Amino acid sequence: MALAVSAREDKAQKASLDRLSALLEDDLKRVNALIIDRMHSPVALIPQLASHIVAAGGKRLRPMLTLATSRMCGYRGDRHFALAASVEFIHTATLLHDDVVDESGLRRGRATANAVWGNKPSVLVGDFLFSRAFELMVEDGSLPVLAILSRASAVIAEGEVLQLVTSNDIETTEESYLEVINAKTAQLFAAASQIGAVLAGRPKEEEDALEAYGRHLGMAFQLIDDMLDYSALQAELGKTVGDDFHDGKITLPVVLALRAADATEKEFWRRTLEDMDQQPEDLTHAIELMRRHGTLTATLDRAREYGVAARRALAPFRDGPERQALDQVIDFCLDRGY
Amino acid sequence: MALAVSAREDKAQKASLDRLSALLEDDLKRVNALIIDRMHSPVALIPQLASHIVAAGGKRLRPMLTLATSRMCGYRGDRHFALAASVEFIHTATLLHDDVVDESGLRRGRATANAVWGNKPSVLVGDFLFSRAFELMVEDGSLPVLAILSRASAVIAEGEVLQLVTSNDIETTEESYLEVINAKTAQLFAAASQIGAVLAGRPKEEEDALEAYGRHLGMAFQLIDDMLDYSALQAELGKTVGDDFHDGKITLPVVLALRAADATEKEFWRRTLEDMDQQPEDLTHAIELMRRHGTLTATLDRAREYGVAARRALAPFRDGPERQALDQVIDFCLDRGY
Repeated sequence: MALAVSAREDKAQKASLDRLSALLEDDLKRVNALIIDRMHSPVALIPQLASHIVAAGGKRLRPMLTLATSRMCGYRGDRHFALAASVEFIHTATLLHDDVVDESGLRRGRATANAVWGNKPSVLVGDFLFSRAFELMVEDGSLPVLAILSRASAVIAEGEVLQLVTSNDIETTEESYLEVINAKTAQLFAAASQIGAVLAGRPKEEEDALEAYGRHLGMAFQLIDDMLDYSALQAELGKTVGDDFHDGKITLPVVLALRAADATEKEFWRRTLEDMDQQPEDLTHAIELMRRHGTLTATLDRAREYGVAARRALAPFRDGPERQALDQVIDFCLDRGY
Repeated sequence: MALAVSAREDKAQKASLDRLSALLEDDLKRVNALIIDRMHSPVALIPQLASHIVAAGGKRLRPMLTLATSRMCGYRGDRHFALAASVEFIHTATLLHDDVVDESGLRRGRATANAVWGNKPSVLVGDFLFSRAFELMVEDGSLPVLAILSRASAVIAEGEVLQLVTSNDIETTEESYLEVINAKTAQLFAAASQIGAVLAGRPKEEEDALEAYGRHLGMAFQLIDDMLDYSALQAELGKTVGDDFHDGKITLPVVLALRAADATEKEFWRRTLEDMDQQPEDLTHAIELMRRHGTLTATLDRAREYGVAARRALAPFRDGPERQALDQVIDFCLDRGY
C-alpha cells in the first residue's frame, strides 16, 4: 500500500520531460516532420499504420537523447535530425513487432496496430520502418553511426528472443533478466546517446560516457516499466496492469518474489507463470506476494542505483541546459515509479 | 494437360544451376561458412531457428548472383563473400516473415520455422538476421552498397504490404501484380547483381546493366513461381500446390483468368478468392479455368519475355565462364516452368 499512497502524494513534484522537450522544441519539430515525410510510401497502408503508432503520443525519448547529447557535445549542424528520426524508426519497428509477439491489444491506451489491422501488416510495416531507418543512416553517411545502430538492432532482437526463451521459466535468474532488459531496452538508449558524441566528433571517452549514461538510463527505465506493470493505474500508464503476468514474462519483481517464496508460493508462481493456469484473482495475489516480500520496492531501488550511475556518467560534461535536461530525464524515468 | 506432359518430356534436358554452382564452388563454401559463423548468437534459439531455414536446401541463388557478377566484372578481392552472405540474410529474414504472414506450414518440403517454433521467434529471428545483414555491410564499409541494399529492403517490405492489400481483391490489375513482384522479388535479384559491378568499381552503365539483368531475372523467376503454384508437382517444388489460391493471392494466372472470365466464372473467383469460401474441389476447377483460357501458358510466355530482356542485359559483358553461367541461370529460372 505504501507505493500507492506515495504515488498520490508525490504527484505534484513529479519530474517530467517538459524541460527537455522545451529545450529541444525546434529540433523535435524538424525530427517529427522528417518522420512523417520518411514514413511515406505509395502503398497507402504503410503511412496509415505507421502514423498510428509513430504519430500517436510517443514520448520521443530516444530521439531526444540523440538531439540533447549532440548539442551538449557542441554539435551545431543538422545531421542529428535524420539520425534521431532513424533511432525513432528502429524503436517503432521493434514496438510493432513486440506487439505482434506479445499479442498486445493496447499500447499507450490505444488499440495496437496489430489489433486494428492484424499481425501481417504490423510485421511488414515494421520491416519497412526498419529499412527506412537504415536508409536515413546511409544518406547521413557515417559508418561509425551505422555500426552503432546496426549492432544495437541485432542486440535488441537477441534480447527479445532471450525474453521469449525465459518466458514461463520460473528458474530464470536475475542475471538472465538483466541481460534481457540490457539488450532489448538499454542498448538503444545507449546507442541513441552515444551517437551524439560521434556526430560532434568528440573523443572516445565522451562516446563511452554517453553510452554508459544511455545504458544505465535504459536499465532504470525498463526496471520501472516492469515494476509499474504490477502497480500503476492503467489510466496513468496507458497500458493494462498485469500484461507481463498474463504473458508469463519473468521480470525482476517475479524473480525476487520467487527467491523469497515458500513452497506454497512457489507452487503459485509455477501454476500461474509456468503452466499459465491463471484465475481472475491471481494477479491480485501476485501483487500481494510482491508486497509481502518487498520486491516492487527492491525493483525501484535497483532502478535508482542505475539512475545514480547514469547521473555519474554525465559528470564529465560541461554544465548547461542540455546536461541539466539529460539529468532531469533520469528523474523522469525514476519518478514514473512513485 | 499439355504442361504436365511437357514437364515429363523435357526433364532430361532441363537447365540447372550446376554450372554456376561448380564455377563458384570455392566462393560458395566461403559464403556458407560466413553465414554459419554470423548467424551465431549466445541465445541458442537464434542459430537453431536460423540454421533450420538458412542451412536447409536453399539454392543460394541471390548470393551466387553477387559472386558471379563481381567476378565477371573482374573483381579479385574477397569482399564479395560478406556481401553475398548479407544478401542471403536479407532474403532469409524476408522468408521467415513471409511464412509468418502467409501462415505457411511448409517451405522447400520441410516444416517452416513458424510451424516448428511458432510465429514469435520467427518474427524476432528475422529481425536479427536483417540486422546482421546490415552489420556485415557496415563492416565491409561501402556506402554505395549500403544504399543499394537498404533501399532494396524497404522496397521489398513495400511490395509485401502491397501484396497483402491486393490479396482477396479480384479487381487487382496486371499492373499492380507486376508492381508487387517487381518489389518483393525482382528488387533483391537486381540489388544482388548490381553490387557485383559496384565491388569491381565498374562504370555506372555496367551497374545499370547488371541491375537490369537481375531485375528481369527476378521477374521471370517470380512469374514461374506463381505459375508453378497452379501446376507443379508438390514433390518437385517442395511446396504445396495451391498455396496462393488458399491464401487468396491474386497472381498473374488469376488476373488473366479473370480478364477472360464470363459471369459464372467471375462469380467463382469472387467466391473463392474474395469471399474465401473455398471447397475442396475448387482448386482443380481454378486450374481448369486457367487452362481453358491459357493463362498458365500466357504467364510462362511473359516470363520468357523477361528472360530475353535479362539475356540482352548481359550482352555488353565479355564472354567467359561467368557470363555463360549467368546466362544459364535464366534458363534455370524458366525451365522450372516446363
